[in-house]
Amino acid sequence: MRPKLKVWVTFGDRLKFGDGRAQLLQLIDEFGSLRKAATELGMSYRNAWGYLRELEEAAGFTFLERVPGGGPRSGMRLTDDAKRFLKRYRQFRDALEGDMKRRFARSYPKQPTSNF
Amino acid sequence: MRPKLKVWVTFGDRLKFGDGRAQLLQLIDEFGSLRKAATELGMSYRNAWGYLRELEEAAGFTFLERVPGGGPRSGMRLTDDAKRFLKRYRQFRDALEGDMKRRFARSYPKQPTSNF
Repeated sequence: MRPKLKVWVTFGDRLKFGDGRAQLLQLIDEFGSLRKAATELGMSYRNAWGYLRELEEAAGFTFLERVPGGGPRSGMRLTDDAKRFLKRYRQFRDALEGDMKRRFARSYPKQPTSNF
Repeated sequence: MRPKLKVWVTFGDRLKFGDGRAQLLQLIDEFGSLRKAATELGMSYRNAWGYLRELEEAAGFTFLERVPGGGPRSGMRLTDDAKRFLKRYRQFRDALEGDMKRRFARSYPKQPTSNF
């Protein structure tokens, strides 16, 4: 018997940001490309782009910027605001994962004569 | 911006127990009837029954018993094991809900100049 957790944050009534979207941001920054990141996750470019537009509007700050210059890493990257947001989300999510394990062990102590 | 949480426990690879199933158990005990409880939740009797059989097998103990005698409350009720299981699940789940609020407030402190 094992505990499971799904965590996300909402903006307003509708827009969600969870592990999948955190991964999208991470990959955009790694690849320098929204298109490659979307493809990697099996999302359409159009969906990924639309989501990011809504996220920026809801959050009130810019998530993506163009890397200046024309070097090999030219393309997209996360803004400092976006990096801070992502870091906080992960901190929040990982801390809660730890809480979950502790709470579960406390609520369902191992008993020699039982499966739970 | 608000945090959200979904919690459940799994038995083996497949069987899940979360808030919806906790509510099913609760309603069976209140109504004294699996059929009424399933209907209330928009489940078929067959699905609810099948789920409970699998849950009992996975957990290794009986969840439902027949109320003895023929009085007005005759019907189904939860066993003591099931009540304890349900109580522990709720304790676990509610504690984690509290953790989530605290963790969120810590990871996303209110800032006067920002939406997050």
